[in-house]
Order: sequence, then C-alpha cells, then structure tokens
Amino acid sequence: MFTDMPMNAFLDALASKEPVPGGGSGAAMGGALGAALVSMVCNLTIGKKGYEAVDQEMRRLLEQSEAIRLEMPRLLEADTQAYGQVMEAYRLPRTTDEEKKAREELLQQRFRAAAEVPMTIAERCAQIVNLALPAAKMGNKWAVSDAGVGALFGEACLRAALLNVEINLASINDAAYVAEMRQKMAALEGTATATKEQVMDIVHKTIAGS
Amino acid sequence: MFTDMPMNAFLDALASKEPVPGGGSGAAMGGALGAALVSMVCNLTIGKKGYEAVDQEMRRLLEQSEAIRLEMPRLLEADTQAYGQVMEAYRLPRTTDEEKKAREELLQQRFRAAAEVPMTIAERCAQIVNLALPAAKMGNKWAVSDAGVGALFGEACLRAALLNVEINLASINDAAYVAEMRQKMAALEGTATATKEQVMDIVHKTIAGS
Repeated sequence: MFTDMPMNAFLDALASKEPVPGGGSGAAMGGALGAALVSMVCNLTIGKKGYEAVDQEMRRLLEQSEAIRLEMPRLLEADTQAYGQVMEAYRLPRTTDEEKKAREELLQQRFRAAAEVPMTIAERCAQIVNLALPAAKMGNKWAVSDAGVGALFGEACLRAALLNVEINLASINDAAYVAEMRQKMAALEGTATATKEQVMDIVHKTIAGS
Repeated sequence: MFTDMPMNAFLDALASKEPVPGGGSGAAMGGALGAALVSMVCNLTIGKKGYEAVDQEMRRLLEQSEAIRLEMPRLLEADTQAYGQVMEAYRLPRTTDEEKKAREELLQQRFRAAAEVPMTIAERCAQIVNLALPAAKMGNKWAVSDAGVGALFGEACLRAALLNVEINLASINDAAYVAEMRQKMAALEGTATATKEQVMDIVHKTIAGS
C-alpha cells in the first residue's frame, strides 16, 4: 500500500512521470491528513479538565474522524486500481466493429467506476469538514488551529477529488448519469466551502480571544 | 525526520494527543504534496511530442517545484523545533521579577521565530500556486488536473501555515512587527486565492475541451 511507504518515497513517486500515484492519490492522502487533525483535536480534548461537558460528543467525533482516516488508504488504492482498469480497457484491440463496440462498452463501465471512487473520496472529505466544525467549536481551545487545518485540507481535497470525477465524466456518454453526478458535485462543493468558512471564522475568533 | 516515517505512522502521530506533529507539520507535508504534483506535470511534459516549444520553460518550472518539495521536510522540522523552543521558554522559572522579565523576553524572541517558520512555509506554498499556473497552461493536457490539485494544496496549505503564524502573533507585544506580518499575510492570501482560481478555470476548461 502507498501509505506504508516512507513519505519521502511517496513524494518521489508522486513527482515522477508515472501517472500513478497522481492527483487522485494526493487527494486521498490529504484527506487522511485532514481527518488525522480532527482526531488530534478530539484526543487533546477527551479527558481534559474544563471539557467534561463535551467529552461524550468528542468521543463520538473521534470515532468518525478515525473511521475516515483509516478508510482513506483503501480509497487511495481503489482509485489507483480504477485508473489502471481504464488504461487496460484502452489497450484492448479495436480492429473489427465488434471489437470496437466491446472496447467502448467496457470503457464506459470503467469510466463510471473511475468516477465513483473519487466521488466517495470527496464525500468523505465533506464529512471531514463537517467534523471540523464541532471540533473547532467545542474542542480544546489550544488546538483550534488544528481543527482549522483539518477543514482546509478537507475542502481542498474534496475539490481535488472532484477534478478526478470530472475527468471521467468527460468521457461518459450517459447524459442522465453525468447530470446526476454533476448535481451531487455542486452540492458537495457548496456545502463544504460554506462549512469551511464557518470553521475558519471560529478559528480566527478563538485565536484572537485567547 | 518525520518525512522518513511511513505515511501511516506519521498519520498516527498526527492524530495522537501529542502536540507535535500538528497543523504546522500538516501544512508543510501538504505543501510537499502540492509541489510534487507540479513536478509530476512537468515530468509528464518534458521530452513529450507536441510540447517541444515549452520544454525549456517546463524544465525551469521543474527545478523550482523540486527545490520547494525538497525544502518542505526541513521546514517541517524547523517548525517543530521552533514550537519546542516556545514550550521550553514557558517552563522557565518565574518566581522573582528578574526571572519573570527574562522569561518574557525569551518568550517574545521565540514567538517571533515560531511565527517566521510558518510564514516561510506560506511563502513557499504561494510559489507552488504560482508554479501551478504555467503548469496548467502549458503542461501536458492529460495531467492538467494534477496541476489543479497542486494549486488546491498550495492554497490550502498556505492558509494552514498562516493559522500558525496567527497563533504566535497573538502573543507578540511589538505592534509594528505584528502589523507588518499581518499585511504580508493578507497579501499572500489574496494573491494565492486569485491565482488558484485562475488555475482552476484553466483546468475545468481543459477537461471540458479534451
């Protein structure tokens, strides 16, 4: 798994001309970083004097942020595989009309799969931004900037993942499916940006008041 | 160095209640991811048929993005150290007036150092966004989304780093210094956001036209 690699080796692989890992993998890795920062805020709040009233809530948050953090490496691998399967279909023969048709049908299936993995990554990133909001509101004040960084990563990686959805949608013929996906994308993006702004507002105010 | 750790171990450390690594380290790590993606676009363009006219320009870009990518691990360590030195100064005795004065003077110095490291990280992240623009404009069209992800990471990590500048400024007494830093922060943020929007615009149009 890519996430078992030393970070430096992953960065070398990312910078290289090999198409994998690429932006999709970067989005998943950044999502994991964002989720980890939300977890950090929870871990700095749970059991802390002065935060007894939010202890249960922070434990619930932590469970959710950890679930996302631990899912991200799997989504990263799934994204890589889905991309590989598109490339595999591209290489199929297209001499006869029958071959052309079979290749195009398989490609259409695989573009969908390759759109859906980054869509899932984007959905998880939206959740990270959502979790960063109560973390910023109720978590340890000394870690409020970490909740802010979590929200920034969540939103940026959501947009990064959606670019990879968009690339695949550009090759999909089913207009109804494409329209439905685009609607979902716009909703995810709008909500995440608004929530991130809310988080940043709390973070700036908390730092100024500390 | 943190970047020699397997990514999973780094994420575990980030999520833990240890204050280091925290949001500042996350910002540097994300900056390295963003720089690596700009490098990837350059590497997918250099020597490629159809991109002869931009070959020299892409080689220059690559040199710059790689320099930033390779500087980020060092900035991550420097950020961690600067934080440690603030914590060390906090623990100094403050029984006598003399001790109080000495402690406060040292703290003021160390808050400055702890503000300046993330400011440098933010400046490098701004450069990543700047480099993503020609990468998106002139680079391999098949990698345009990677330039987009590079810009998204650059801008988000710039904002993340600035939160860590802000935390330290909140404790600095020298109003002129604080005002100067705030001015620099606002300029960096404004330019980076505008440039990121330009990059995203090119990316969306290129994907739609491909």
